[in-house]
Order: sequence, then structure tokens, then C-alpha cells
Amino acid sequence: MIIVMKPGAASQSIDAVVSFVKNSGLQTHLSQGEEVTIIGIVGDKSKLPTDNLVSFKDVDRVVAVTESYKLANKKFHPEATTVKAGNTIIGSDTMTIMAGPCAVESEEQLMLIAQAVKKAGATFLRGGAYKPRTSPYSFQGLETEGLRYMQQAAKETGLATICEVVSQEAIESAVKYVDMIQIGARNMQNFILLKEAGRSGLPVLLKRGLCATIDEWLNAAEYIIAEGNPNVVLCERGIRTFETATRNTLDLSAVPVLKEKTHLPIIVDPSHSTGAYKYVSPMAKAAVAAGTDGLMIEVHDNPSCALSDGPQSLTFEKFHKLMDELAPFCELAGRRLG
Amino acid sequence: MIIVMKPGAASQSIDAVVSFVKNSGLQTHLSQGEEVTIIGIVGDKSKLPTDNLVSFKDVDRVVAVTESYKLANKKFHPEATTVKAGNTIIGSDTMTIMAGPCAVESEEQLMLIAQAVKKAGATFLRGGAYKPRTSPYSFQGLETEGLRYMQQAAKETGLATICEVVSQEAIESAVKYVDMIQIGARNMQNFILLKEAGRSGLPVLLKRGLCATIDEWLNAAEYIIAEGNPNVVLCERGIRTFETATRNTLDLSAVPVLKEKTHLPIIVDPSHSTGAYKYVSPMAKAAVAAGTDGLMIEVHDNPSCALSDGPQSLTFEKFHKLMDELAPFCELAGRRLG
Amino acid sequence: MIIVMKPGAASQSIDAVVSFVKNSGLQTHLSQGEEVTIIGIVGDKSKLPTDNLVSFKDVDRVVAVTESYKLANKKFHPEATTVKAGNTIIGSDTMTIMAGPCAVESEEQLMLIAQAVKKAGATFLRGGAYKPRTSPYSFQGLETEGLRYMQQAAKETGLATICEVVSQEAIESAVKYVDMIQIGARNMQNFILLKEAGRSGLPVLLKRGLCATIDEWLNAAEYIIAEGNPNVVLCERGIRTFETATRNTLDLSAVPVLKEKTHLPIIVDPSHSTGAYKYVSPMAKAAVAAGTDGLMIEVHDNPSCALSDGPQSLTFEKFHKLMDELAPFCELAGRRLG
Amino acid sequence: MIIVMKPGAASQSIDAVVSFVKNSGLQTHLSQGEEVTIIGIVGDKSKLPTDNLVSFKDVDRVVAVTESYKLANKKFHPEATTVKAGNTIIGSDTMTIMAGPCAVESEEQLMLIAQAVKKAGATFLRGGAYKPRTSPYSFQGLETEGLRYMQQAAKETGLATICEVVSQEAIESAVKYVDMIQIGARNMQNFILLKEAGRSGLPVLLKRGLCATIDEWLNAAEYIIAEGNPNVVLCERGIRTFETATRNTLDLSAVPVLKEKTHLPIIVDPSHSTGAYKYVSPMAKAAVAAGTDGLMIEVHDNPSCALSDGPQSLTFEKFHKLMDELAPFCELAGRRLG
Repeated sequence: MIIVMKPGAASQSIDAVVSFVKNSGLQTHLSQGEEVTIIGIVGDKSKLPTDNLVSFKDVDRVVAVTESYKLANKKFHPEATTVKAGNTIIGSDTMTIMAGPCAVESEEQLMLIAQAVKKAGATFLRGGAYKPRTSPYSFQGLETEGLRYMQQAAKETGLATICEVVSQEAIESAVKYVDMIQIGARNMQNFILLKEAGRSGLPVLLKRGLCATIDEWLNAAEYIIAEGNPNVVLCERGIRTFETATRNTLDLSAVPVLKEKTHLPIIVDPSHSTGAYKYVSPMAKAAVAAGTDGLMIEVHDNPSCALSDGPQSLTFEKFHKLMDELAPFCELAGRRLG
Repeated sequence: MIIVMKPGAASQSIDAVVSFVKNSGLQTHLSQGEEVTIIGIVGDKSKLPTDNLVSFKDVDRVVAVTESYKLANKKFHPEATTVKAGNTIIGSDTMTIMAGPCAVESEEQLMLIAQAVKKAGATFLRGGAYKPRTSPYSFQGLETEGLRYMQQAAKETGLATICEVVSQEAIESAVKYVDMIQIGARNMQNFILLKEAGRSGLPVLLKRGLCATIDEWLNAAEYIIAEGNPNVVLCERGIRTFETATRNTLDLSAVPVLKEKTHLPIIVDPSHSTGAYKYVSPMAKAAVAAGTDGLMIEVHDNPSCALSDGPQSLTFEKFHKLMDELAPFCELAGRRLG
Repeated sequence: MIIVMKPGAASQSIDAVVSFVKNSGLQTHLSQGEEVTIIGIVGDKSKLPTDNLVSFKDVDRVVAVTESYKLANKKFHPEATTVKAGNTIIGSDTMTIMAGPCAVESEEQLMLIAQAVKKAGATFLRGGAYKPRTSPYSFQGLETEGLRYMQQAAKETGLATICEVVSQEAIESAVKYVDMIQIGARNMQNFILLKEAGRSGLPVLLKRGLCATIDEWLNAAEYIIAEGNPNVVLCERGIRTFETATRNTLDLSAVPVLKEKTHLPIIVDPSHSTGAYKYVSPMAKAAVAAGTDGLMIEVHDNPSCALSDGPQSLTFEKFHKLMDELAPFCELAGRRLG
Repeated sequence: MIIVMKPGAASQSIDAVVSFVKNSGLQTHLSQGEEVTIIGIVGDKSKLPTDNLVSFKDVDRVVAVTESYKLANKKFHPEATTVKAGNTIIGSDTMTIMAGPCAVESEEQLMLIAQAVKKAGATFLRGGAYKPRTSPYSFQGLETEGLRYMQQAAKETGLATICEVVSQEAIESAVKYVDMIQIGARNMQNFILLKEAGRSGLPVLLKRGLCATIDEWLNAAEYIIAEGNPNVVLCERGIRTFETATRNTLDLSAVPVLKEKTHLPIIVDPSHSTGAYKYVSPMAKAAVAAGTDGLMIEVHDNPSCALSDGPQSLTFEKFHKLMDELAPFCELAGRRLG
């Protein structure tokens, strides 16, 4: 923490800041420049409501030097985390492929899709039973019934399963039926839900909020880990920008940035980010080349009739083709499917 | 709903779209241009998974013509809504001033602030008992205890009270102690919470999400109203942009845009949007001039020591001065404080 | 300038940075915290390619402490600047109203509009003779002919005149015919044009770029002033965000931010920012309340037939009504029209 | 072009729009829905100031159906363009690597770098002789002297050369000394410069503006092609978003989007977009996997001492390593270096 004083700050103003910091049990370090004075703060900043220092007289800016997340921070946990879910491992030299429909629509549909994605090489079945939708008049999911179909599909195919949760109630159901839960983009800063996910014991896929900075995202992960649940996987799914040619802007640079800042595995979702099936394949390959630990891809038996997000879903044939084309990219990236 | 076909679309492609729409019980209207064919859809679009039409062959784009929100839509409810909370009315020719601390810190502090803002002319006491914070290590609020202090402050001052809620549990407590609940920016698309707020019976202040479009915001309001609760007030509190000189960018144009699109009242929060006390006064005046129905302003007895958001809080003295300066602007805008 | 080292930075790494800085003729100031070491730099930073310090081993971040603009900076020039153009003064207690068509279309049209805006109380005639248009197939302006009409209109009405320039050639013509030149948003970082505007001797209105930070904007102003031309006025005209309900998002908070950071006057353009005539009036009033020194408003005799930006132009009747309504807001803000 | 009327639009309002369109020599096509009436416009829209239709009574929205760019549009020119510069070809099955310093600093430096990048496999030498810098006090380039060094380097190594131009004067010099010119992000909508680049006869690399939509970018390309110069290559270099972990957000989805919308080749710049050398390698590989036709990469003999953009420059060793690692990705993408 560094406090930058305004040019010509009165010595009383500097003294006031220094006293306040020292009274909070911390040390200061003065650096008198030609134009400005800088006060460094040394010690445990959690004792100090540091933001407020901005309201002191003649203070120009307060600059944070260290990140507020600790458990998710690679600086303090340099070894890469691997997360186990069902029979699969996420992280290390594995390339995890999560595939399935945006929304679980019926038992038959789910079985059909589960078998198709399994055959093509996926190890994870994704499928939404609780759907957060912009309009209250859109299809909102089959809820517990959908989770049961997921469990059934897991039994028949051996795939690990992942479902989005939107409430404590949904988490309680998910614990019974699936291997991993997902916190969606709109709930990334629903801190109550994050804490409940932390206490659930299940591994958690945490999607990035539509306008969340990487720093806020890692702080959200910190909420989960701080509840004693270290099994967090991050999922980049596009951020909101001014560009409208794609639904969101997939921020692939987030992959190497995260690899530098955190030990948590990262998954990329090229389906939701682009919003168009035709862009899924190039962006999936790009994500692998950028160093992702896995992909989350929407697959549907009949995209034109999907109850949610049809335009971005791949048909079985297109998914199969993508998996074939991905294989050598995975190999180049030093990853094996699984 | 309009479907724009690609240039040179095959007649079979056009037929396929038309058949699909007709099979869903709707009518189509063909418009053959020189370059492209356009298919208009007539009838109740809720029967049709319209997004998916994008995945049909030779379809270029699907353009929505009508808004998905109905209950919040001025087109269908042209008269302005007024919302009653405590002894106050929001909307019509009233200028509602909600003031108080970001977080309730103690009973003494809250009483002190309540009396000060009452004296300066506010009719609403705001105070956070549940604080959504980016980092799990920041102060998270006094919860039910804080709500009780709010009730106590209401009794002593006659101010109406408003508190943010972050969970079903918080709503259940709030119903007992305060006059109005607030859904914060981070929870604007927490649809479970919106529904519960709708069922609570209390009037709801719905803050705009950090990167929510006005259209998404009105759809979120629709979730609340669709549960039978028409008492929704919108609160503009800044959107996230690339600019860093202010914490967020206050989108004041949203005021006249909302006045055109919806019948719901709108409140502007110049404190959270700018993040700096020195910008609160000019932006409060600007909001009044732009046509807002009210303001939400942070006031603290000692901003330098506030446990949350100190830098943007006004002292009693500054708040008093602001209220004095605001009065003639309110009069010009045809509003009376209350 | 502060250099933040990584936790556990080797002492050789720290020494390497310190040596590099000292070899450039500057002083350093070490602050050893529990987690990290911070190196403050004291002296004239222009001698040092400071950005590059990031590429030194174990450097985490370089934090700038002082702004790179000096001549535009209020810290070094605390008195507010006033700019003279034609018979008018911009700044101080004046509220400057610039009004006129987006594009000059004909002599008759311009005279008609000039008389109308003069009658309503404007002191400045705006009119585009060089139009930067997204598509090469849109109307690009009358060029020198348009400038001559502007001069003619000035003679007949006594209004001061302002025209956008897009090239050195345009500046050379403008010098002969108009009182003030405008650098448009798309050219805000066309540094060649900025320098030429600086050398022209005419006062310059510098519009903010669509995605320019306030800091970049003030650096652009610095380019003009550094050529010996202190007569720069800033114009906020909306920034690009994800919101599509308005053409751009008018960043009114920029007004108080600029009042704090710079001594230059500021004008607000509610026409281009909103892109819709119906939002011009509330945003014009809001801008006055926020502290602007003036407004730039599009007025057209027949908006439905305007060759450029018709949808946002006011008719004579609407502009007259706006000026009547604005008057008491200007008075409240301590400004007199002129 | 489609005009959507408001619900309950008066028939006179509809008639007024229809008459206006017909008087402009175009045809209309009415579609009367249950809620709204839609007017399709058939014919050559360039005859019609279509934006203004928004100001007609009862008009809700005007929706463009066809793109305004024609020459850059793949719909009308389905075959991919290849661009020849020096001895190289950009496009088709070639992977073009442009490498070199951000700014040309001296003859010796440039020769050293040219030989190093040539040896590592680049076919293009990039180097800035005219540097657009945010602050007027930063190094602005060697100008013509720098161009001469570029020519010299080309002679010695056989590399093709590319330089940014910022003015007509710079273009006139560039024509004499280099093989290709670059329009930088800040000048993407400097339409005067685009036209001059179009008339120069040299192939043009057009960088995307910091907040330019893909549609605006292709319209900027249209300005160049419309002057009779079809040799335009697009360069994605990151867009401005709220994220600050990288300097800009590299929009890799733009690659497949452009491959669908235009026939022009596309180059990706992972150096400027990320602003950090450590992210260049993963993003370069990702760009190749996404389908780019080439890469532009900053290489410097001593990044810590570079006069411009040192932090993002690769050393010779790092660039060599990147080229080795890229080779198999290029092969997978069906491209050969050259």
C-alpha cells in the first residue's frame, strides 16, 4: 500500500496520514520526491480501512501493491492445482472436454447427446437444469428432474457431470446428483452463492462475470476457497465490449494472465462467448494453443430446435469433426484428452 | 420479429424458415428486395424459440422488433407509477432523497446519521446491513442487528428505511424491519433473488448491473413485477467503462431513456458511480436537471473511518450544503422534496 | 514513479534497477516492506525510458505518480483559462451556446439557421464543412465553399463561428474564414493535426475521442498548447460503451473531473452523444447543472432532410424552447448566456 | 433497410414515410403485424438520407439490412485476396511474420535486428519511423532518416519492409523507401489519410481502432479500396475494454468473423495488444490456430533500453524460440512460413 500525496502537501497533512496508519498498528516509510511525497505502509493491511485514506487532506491517490486474494494467488501457492471430478482430473497435462446441451430438455435427448459426446472423446457432460434467463418468459430449466437425468447419463456413459447452480436449494440437489457445480457469469459476485458452493464439498467451475476484471474473478474464487474448498476451476466465457459481431468478446489473453497469477486450472467456453456455432471451432483451437486446461462446448442433437442457445450449439457431426481437428493441437500443447 | 435472409438465399431455405414459423402457429410476411429477402413474423412470438432461427440455412440475422418486457413497458402502461414506502411517495412530483451510511456500523452511529440527514431534508434512511464485497476479507455487514438499528432509527426520526438484501434469508429479515429493499448491482441478474423480492411484498429498488443494458435492466424489473409486485424503482449507479478517473461512469442519459421506455420511477446514485465525494454534488444537481425522481447519497459522520466506501461519503456539513444548493434545482425541475 | 518489486525479489534484481535509474541521473528511495520492496524514483523522469523498467527481472509493476501533461495541468496553472473567439469569451462566468447544423448544406440553409439560433440566444454558429463519415459513400461536406458560407453568416449575424478541420489544408482554409476550429473525436489522437492546430493561431475545440481516457485527452490538449497555442477548449461528446439505447454514453462526470484536473474550459455536446433529439434537452440542462462552460447543439431547419445526423437535430421551435428552459438553470449555475 | 413503426402508429404517419421513400425513387413493402407495422425499402439506398427517417413521426427504429461496405465485402467478392509486398505474398497458404522494433532508433540497431529476425524466419521487417505517442514529450521517431535505414536493411537482408505513416508527407517519403505502409489504430478513422494511402499505390496494413467495431473497420478499408487500391491487409491489435491486466484485449474472434465477412487477409499483433512480452508467445500460437494470415511481433536487441514499447518486445533469443515453437502450429493450420 502506497499513499501518494498531492504536490505541495502540507506537513500537517502528511503527519495526519502517518499518525492514522501508526495508530492502526502499522509502520510507514516516507519518500520525499521533488514534486510529491509518498508514504509506504508496512504491515498487515487488514487492520486498516485503507480506502478511506483517500479522504484525508492532500492525499492524491492510494495505490495497492499486493493482491487482496491470497489462497488463489500463485505467489503464495506456486504449484498448479489439479481438480478431481468423477473419474476425471482437470489440470496438469490433461485437456478436459466438457460437452453437452445448454439446457437439459428431456431424458431421451440427454442420453442421445451424452453418448454422442462420449463417443467423440469428451469426458464431461454439461447440461443446464437451472437456467438464468434475461427474460422471465424464457424457458427456465427442468430443475431437479434435469439433475436426475444427468445422473442417469453419467451411469450409462461413465462421463463426469457438471450443472449450473443458481441457489442454495439447487446446490443441495446438485450434491446428490452431479460431480461438479458451475457458478454462472451473472452470479460471479453473488457472494452468498459462492460461500454455499464453498461449503458444498463439490468441485466448482467459476465462470467469469460479463464485466469482471481478472482481479475480481480471483477474489470471487477466494470466497469459495476460504470456505475450505480448494477445488475451483476458472472458466473464461467472454466479456462484454462494444463489439456486436460476436455475442461477447472471448478474452483469450486471460489464459496466460491467469497462468501467471493463479494456480487454479482454467477452462475456455468458445460457445457462449461467440454465440455462433461457426466460430466455435477456430476459437477452441486457439484456446488450446493459448494454454487452456480444457474446453466447454455446447452440443445439441438438433440446434434449430434447442430450447436455449441453439445458434451456438454444434451438431454431433460438427462436434466430432472438431474433436478430430483438435487432437493434434492438444498434442502440440503437450496435453492428452481425458 | 424479422428474419433477414442472406443475399442469394435458396428458395428452399426461405421455405424452410416459413414452414417452421407456420408450424409454430404464427404467420409470415415475405418482402423480396433486390439484394435480400426479409421474412416478417406476425403473432405471439412466445410460442417460438426464435433465437434458433439463426441456425437455419441462409439466414443472415434475426431482428427483434418488440421488447421482451411487457409489465415494465411504457407502451403498455403509459401512466407513470408511484411507489409508496413508509410515509413517503416515490415518483410523481416528489424528489426523494435517500441518504445514510454505506454500511450500518453501530446503533449510535446510525442514530447520529439518521438525525443529521433528516434535519437536512432527506425522507429516506439508507444503510447496508448485508454488504457484498469484492474480497472475502472486507467487512460484510452487521446483518439482522443492522436491520434492527434501521428500524429503531425509523421510529426515532420518521424516516422511511431501505436496505440491500443479498439472499432469501436477508429478505425474510428485512420484511420485519425496513420499508423497502434494494437489489444491488451485482445481483441484478440473480433471478432467484429477483423472484423472492417480487414475492416479499415490499417495494424494491433495483440497481442497474455494472454492465447491464437498459433492456436487460427492464427485463430484471419484469421478473419482480411478474411475481405480482408492481412497486419497483430503478436506480442508475454507474456502468463500467474504460475510464478510470471515476469509479464507474454515471450514465445520466439513462434517465430520459427510461422515462421514455418505462413507467417506473428512477433514482440516481451519484456516490457509488463516481466513488469520490467531491463529484457527488455536481452529479446530484445534474441528475435533478435530467429528470430523476430521486437521489441516493452516502453520508457518514466520519468518512475517513467508514468501514465501507468512505471516500465517496459526504460529511454532515457537506450534505447539508448540497441539500441547500439542490433545493432551487428541484424547484426548477418541478419537484418538491419529500 | 514507483517501482514495485515481486515478493522475494533477489537483491541483485533490486540492485540492477537501482543502478539503471542512477545511471540515468536520477535518485532512488528504497522502501522494504514485509512482502515487497518498493523503489521510489526522484528527479526528472523525462531522462528515463521508464516503461521499460517493467522488463527488468523481478519487477512487478511501475506506477506513475505524476501526470505526463504539464501545460494543461491545473496543478501547475491553477487559474481557469478563458478563450476568446470572435466577439465571445468561453469560460469564466459565461455559458457559451454553439448551435447550428451538423453539415453546411447550402448558403440559404445556413443563413436561415444562423438567424434562428442567434434569435434564440446562441453566440456561436457551428457548421461542418469537412465531414468525417464512417462510409466513403456518405456526404463528405462542401469544404471551402462551406467555410465561406460560415464567414458570410458571421457577417450577417455577428455570431462567432466554429468548423471542424480534418487536414492541414482544411486548417489553412479555416484560418481565413472562421473564428475557431474543432478537432473531432476520430482525430483526437491524430497528432500531426493537433500540432498543426497548435500552429494555426486559432482557438481550438478538442473533442474527446470515442474511447479516450481523460488522461489521454489532456495529453492531446498538451500537443496543441506545446505548439504555443494556449486557447484550447475541451468538448465532451460521449464515449463508447456497451449500451446501445443512446448512440454513445455522455460522460457528464467528466465535467467535475476536468474542473479538478485542468484549467481549460469545457463544452458538452448533448446532440452527438445521445444521437436522438428527444434526449438533448434533459442532457443539456444536466450539463449546465454539472458545471459546463458551454453547450454545442445541433439545430436544423428540417431535420428529416438533413444530409448528416438528422435524428439528433433540434428544429428551430425545439431549440427556442430549450433556450427558454435553460435560462434559469444557467442563472442557478452562476452563468450568463453569451 | 427496414423501418419499424411504433405500436399504434397513425396511418398518416405510415403514409408520410412511404411517400418520402417513394419520392426518393425507391419502393416500399408494407408488413402489418399485430403490434407494429414494418416498412421494407427496396432499391438503391444511396439515394436516401435514411438515418433521418428516425425523425419522422411514429417511427420506432430504422434497421440496416445490408452492409455499407461493398468492395471489402465477401458477399460481393467471395475469393480471398492475396497482397504482394516486396518479394512476399500475404494471404493464401502463407503465414507472414512481420518482426522488428517498435521504433527505428539507429542504423546499427536496425541492421542487427533485421538480421536476427531474418535468421529466425521472418519475411517482413517492421520498424516505426513516425511514432504517434500519447504524450508530446515522448520520442516521436527518426522520420525520413528512419525510412532510409529500413530501405538499407531491406537491401542487406531481402526482407520486405513496412512502416507506419501518419501524414501525407510521411506517405510521400514511404513510397520511396518501403514496400508497405501501415495506418495505425489511432488513425483508423483519419479518412484523409485513408484516401491518401489509397492513392499511394503501396499495399496498406490497416490496424483496427482501439474502439472500432468490425463494421467500422471494414468501412475504413473501403475508403482505401475505393481510391483504386485493392491491396489492403487488416491487423487486429486489441480493443479497449475495462480489463487492465493486459494493455488491450486481443479480440481473436475477429479472425473468424473477418474470414466470413471479407476477402482481405488478416494479421494479428500479439505485442501491442497484450503489452507484455510474456504473453506474446501464447497469443501468437492462438492466433495461428484461429486462422490468421500472419503475425506482427516486436523484437528488440535490448528491450530494457528500447525508446518505445520495450516491455512488450521479445529479445532475439525469445523470438527465435517462438518461431521454433510456432512452426508446427503453422503446419497444422495449413500454412507455410514465407
